[in-house]
Amino acid sequence: MNFLIDGLQYANWSEKIFRQMRAGGVDAVHVTIAYHETFRETVLNIEQWNRWFETYPDLIFHGRTAADVRVARETGRTAIFFGSQNPSCIEDDIGLVEVMHTLGLRFMQLTYNNQSLLASGCYEDEDTGLTRMGRAVMAEMNRVGLVVDMSHSGERSTFEAIAHSTRPIAITHANPASWHPALRNKSDALLRALGESGGFLGLSAYPHHLKDGSACTLQSWCDMAAFAVELVGPTGVGIGTDLCQDQPDSIVEWMRVGRWTKTIDYGEGSADAPGFPPMPDWFRDNRDLAAIRDGLRAAGLDQTTADGVMGNNWLTFFEQSFGADTAQSEEARRAAE
Amino acid sequence: MNFLIDGLQYANWSEKIFRQMRAGGVDAVHVTIAYHETFRETVLNIEQWNRWFETYPDLIFHGRTAADVRVARETGRTAIFFGSQNPSCIEDDIGLVEVMHTLGLRFMQLTYNNQSLLASGCYEDEDTGLTRMGRAVMAEMNRVGLVVDMSHSGERSTFEAIAHSTRPIAITHANPASWHPALRNKSDALLRALGESGGFLGLSAYPHHLKDGSACTLQSWCDMAAFAVELVGPTGVGIGTDLCQDQPDSIVEWMRVGRWTKTIDYGEGSADAPGFPPMPDWFRDNRDLAAIRDGLRAAGLDQTTADGVMGNNWLTFFEQSFGADTAQSEEARRAAE
Repeated sequence: MNFLIDGLQYANWSEKIFRQMRAGGVDAVHVTIAYHETFRETVLNIEQWNRWFETYPDLIFHGRTAADVRVARETGRTAIFFGSQNPSCIEDDIGLVEVMHTLGLRFMQLTYNNQSLLASGCYEDEDTGLTRMGRAVMAEMNRVGLVVDMSHSGERSTFEAIAHSTRPIAITHANPASWHPALRNKSDALLRALGESGGFLGLSAYPHHLKDGSACTLQSWCDMAAFAVELVGPTGVGIGTDLCQDQPDSIVEWMRVGRWTKTIDYGEGSADAPGFPPMPDWFRDNRDLAAIRDGLRAAGLDQTTADGVMGNNWLTFFEQSFGADTAQSEEARRAAE
Repeated sequence: MNFLIDGLQYANWSEKIFRQMRAGGVDAVHVTIAYHETFRETVLNIEQWNRWFETYPDLIFHGRTAADVRVARETGRTAIFFGSQNPSCIEDDIGLVEVMHTLGLRFMQLTYNNQSLLASGCYEDEDTGLTRMGRAVMAEMNRVGLVVDMSHSGERSTFEAIAHSTRPIAITHANPASWHPALRNKSDALLRALGESGGFLGLSAYPHHLKDGSACTLQSWCDMAAFAVELVGPTGVGIGTDLCQDQPDSIVEWMRVGRWTKTIDYGEGSADAPGFPPMPDWFRDNRDLAAIRDGLRAAGLDQTTADGVMGNNWLTFFEQSFGADTAQSEEARRAAE
């Protein structure tokens, strides 16, 4: 059975979008529930999701385990997995790592562009790597089964996360910088190290991460995917579109500026183009996802690898990542005896 | 198989107490995690429990379902179920009902002695019954599987909770007022209505709820239990000791005064006896629980009923109470089709 999984979306959620997920045959989506939100604000966002789960039980449900992806397929629904693009949701409290995992969080970025309490973001002048709290929180994330996501982190911080994490990490939405040199894209050396560690790369369709931006062709994107498979390996690559469907431009401003500055920061945009860029014409919404499979085959990937990139690889990663680290717990218990 | 379950404790938790639970063969305990705490403060208390679960995995674990009581017995541990004695943990936000349930809350009192946003407490001069928010929150508690607990509520509020709840409610720790007329104990008429509705009474061993206080004998208490069985029914009675082992007197002051007044309120105590009263000599800690079984037989209960009161009745109530109201959901789904 072949699955279809998107490793990152942050849409202006609505029944229309949930129905597009079903029309597109999307089995699971990792959705962002926090950019700069505190713990309490993140819980408010979870409450909103709970309302959607209650209102549209025939379309979506809250995904917690890899098995829920199979449940989604069997019941004709889309499993929604929570992630945070910033550790703001755990504030300065390591105890909130397990609490957020209990509430369903399955991915957490150590940084969002800026320095955080845990590591350095990709927009800082100086990347000082993992902080003391960063190492402590990463061990706790490894213990409970909360995936370390370094999509918006600096290169040194990401290398250190790969080295210190006892479980594979993810870069849920980024592309190779050698294909398109954006600050958010990743160097070939980093992506090779990610692959060697068993880590995972979700490929972005966000125009600022694409060669030729919104004009990027499906063929160009699929050629890039084939190159990413060479760097990371055939089982370590998936999709993480970064789709921000139906969002007003005030949202991209919130992502970039949060509450950390009183001035405007354009991030990947510019004063001339401050808003969301138009998506490439071959990927407007969830209904277009499935067609990427043929593009990957045309780019030279064999069927198994193409199917892996479309979702099977994410499913395997979910299976290895979302549960408690029982090996570690068993080991700790034996050591204590 | 006969189970041993205590339906209410709020001890100064420690390895010593967890080991006493094991020595006493206690399969499950409903523990209080909030008296006056806000949501965030309640989460801090959950974080502390998570530390205990991580530190003492061979003694205790977090109970979420009735099946966990059987897991506790099979693995020689005690399952810990969370409850709040006050709706302060959901603040003014109905969305926190499901969030707290996800975090493991299985019981919530609508009031703690005082008027709350939901209902009237047993110490108020006027009991005005369920509030508008009280009815809304109770419906949400019924939906997700969070038990309505009226231990510290006024009589009218409790009658209204019984009438409006679509699922059986509990009074986790109180005794018949006709045995000992404390404000916290319940009238015969109320206990009969509770039983007729399928509700549940946990019998308290807290001296202020006992005839003769700390000098109450096991025989007197077991005679009271037999009387409670007559009022509520043989399957609707269990134990809810209200054990507050090893707590300093500052804790009983926090329970009574919280942050709601600047003056001292002695609650069930008095200026002469402001602290915790000594427990009766036949119930000092969890190791003494099992001996109550013989006392219940001596008071005339048949073996099945005595075993029911000791834990089997709570287990059946857990089985019926902690899951989502699927019947209601199915009905709602059919109505929507």
